[in-house]
Amino acid sequence: MTLDLFMDAAIQEAQRGLAAGGIPIGSVVVKNGTIVGRGHNLRVQQGSAILHAEMSALETLGRQPAMFYQDVTLYTTLSPCSMCTGAILLYKIPRVVIGENHTFMGEEALLKSRGVKVTVLDLPQCRQMMQAFIKGTPQLWYEDIGVEQA
Amino acid sequence: MTLDLFMDAAIQEAQRGLAAGGIPIGSVVVKNGTIVGRGHNLRVQQGSAILHAEMSALETLGRQPAMFYQDVTLYTTLSPCSMCTGAILLYKIPRVVIGENHTFMGEEALLKSRGVKVTVLDLPQCRQMMQAFIKGTPQLWYEDIGVEQA
Repeated sequence: MTLDLFMDAAIQEAQRGLAAGGIPIGSVVVKNGTIVGRGHNLRVQQGSAILHAEMSALETLGRQPAMFYQDVTLYTTLSPCSMCTGAILLYKIPRVVIGENHTFMGEEALLKSRGVKVTVLDLPQCRQMMQAFIKGTPQLWYEDIGVEQA
Repeated sequence: MTLDLFMDAAIQEAQRGLAAGGIPIGSVVVKNGTIVGRGHNLRVQQGSAILHAEMSALETLGRQPAMFYQDVTLYTTLSPCSMCTGAILLYKIPRVVIGENHTFMGEEALLKSRGVKVTVLDLPQCRQMMQAFIKGTPQLWYEDIGVEQA
């Protein structure tokens, strides 16, 4: 448990993904103090190239008008890659809370340059979850971030 | 028909989407001179916030190692939004061919700044397809690009 209930929910999503044989990254979308969307990385489970945790969480919101996103916060256990960053920018999500960015530094600079408020909690449990996973199956991790394994 | 067989295929995808009641944007992924992935915007058909044409086309490729994308070209009938741009950057797709960017100017500058070769064909049939669609259902178009309708 962390001091942030919403990040706890994102971590639970990540753990749910791991338990299903997937990559342990989770995300929730919060609006008016309530979780309105949640998801985890589904690369393994659905053979998907696009269902990163943040994308899965956004997809659970279904179709929404632009106004819907104006006051939401996206929580993610890991710094968002360029695809997820692009989705955040498309829908003009104003605030992103990140579990950790040691394992992977996503496009935080781009988010900030476009006015998104980015908060990094730097949580040991998020780092440990990813590092244990990568140690076990590095090739899956590199596939997920589009990097050719050294 | 245009002078580009792959863009023709992307336009056919867009028309397929339109015929199904969807937003007429299509995309194909080409590798070694062959179409290996194709798709169209599925916002309406699947109630999706993330299945833009380019995302749909990338998703049909399934899981691939990073190396797979190193020599692919992504064709899209409309300039790619920030989400689709982010997906192109994630997988380091080196080349993007765009039908038109009058209706919507996507993140072409960002793509170029990261070394992606961007070619805009500026095709009247792509512009006309979008403009007829937007005239008929402007609210759907604005929803798709995350803009509050004026």
